[in-house]
Amino acid sequence: MSFATSEHRRDVPLPQAYRLLNHGPTVLVSATHGGRANVMAAAWAMPLDFDPPKLTVVIDKNTFTRRLIEASGEFALSVPCRALVDATYAAGSLSGAEHEDKLAACGISTFAGQHIAAPLIEGCVAWLECRVIVEPHHQHAYDLFVAEVLAAQADERVFAGGRWLTDSPQVLRTLHHQSGGAFFVAGETVQARKPRG
Amino acid sequence: MSFATSEHRRDVPLPQAYRLLNHGPTVLVSATHGGRANVMAAAWAMPLDFDPPKLTVVIDKNTFTRRLIEASGEFALSVPCRALVDATYAAGSLSGAEHEDKLAACGISTFAGQHIAAPLIEGCVAWLECRVIVEPHHQHAYDLFVAEVLAAQADERVFAGGRWLTDSPQVLRTLHHQSGGAFFVAGETVQARKPRG
Repeated sequence: MSFATSEHRRDVPLPQAYRLLNHGPTVLVSATHGGRANVMAAAWAMPLDFDPPKLTVVIDKNTFTRRLIEASGEFALSVPCRALVDATYAAGSLSGAEHEDKLAACGISTFAGQHIAAPLIEGCVAWLECRVIVEPHHQHAYDLFVAEVLAAQADERVFAGGRWLTDSPQVLRTLHHQSGGAFFVAGETVQARKPRG
Repeated sequence: MSFATSEHRRDVPLPQAYRLLNHGPTVLVSATHGGRANVMAAAWAMPLDFDPPKLTVVIDKNTFTRRLIEASGEFALSVPCRALVDATYAAGSLSGAEHEDKLAACGISTFAGQHIAAPLIEGCVAWLECRVIVEPHHQHAYDLFVAEVLAAQADERVFAGGRWLTDSPQVLRTLHHQSGGAFFVAGETVQARKPRG
């Protein structure tokens, strides 16, 4: 599977990085350590601060990706689009502990990030490179990881000038997992009226 | 503004409550204490556990709603739909500290919950009644509130049998805030292919 999006990837200024997650898309979480790399899907991820940008994501204790994150202190979030719906569901269903190369089993290709060793996922529409802010109680009690965003990129066909484009191709729209492999695709953009203060 | 949805409200079994937030909608956070009630919008909210259901939401220190939550130990999340886009943006822009009755200023009506005193928002499509699990470090360092969901309801025209309906009316679709009052509306539902394990 090749989407060849590298020509469309553009850096996103860090104060705008939260906008890549603000609308609640499902993400792919990837990490590497000791020669192994893995990816999982997460619907439970959200921004946590604007500048410097932070985010938080729930990563179950049983996942192989969590072991790689705890060992390396880093992970990447990639924001998949409609074209990747089967790969995203596979990444959320298969286990890296049982598949020698889960990325291949999911039909996922990767490319190198700018600041961290964790691989970024090809064919996605946005990417955030993250360094874990160690919070033992959050991680133990709630499986909640907090991280600072070190670098962000987006596909200029869907996100440019700090905004999601209203007329982006359907196949590049973000996915929002309901349950059981059913996803909402991001639909029409509506602009609210400015409130009278 | 009257949407008269009470006839369509149905209880959601607690183990399915996470599905009301799983796809990343923007929510309205409401609370009451000492005779004052308030509401704010939050794009940064997500599930945290399945059963018993927990969720987490970022609530800034400067908000009036936070004062009410810290005093009462409770809040409600209501999931607004397209019909409420202007009210939702107003709830995210105006301050309850500056408006004697912010709910009225936002054009928002409320109804009583089942388990908590905090008001639920009329015209929304899903509601979660929450009790704060006090986590001082989360709250102080990251403005992050953790809560257990005590009761959940949804509008049967959009969520029934534990699932979001694929053919629900556009005006009842959930909102996903991008920035500056621009929201994605939840679009088409796509079903991923079951992965080969």
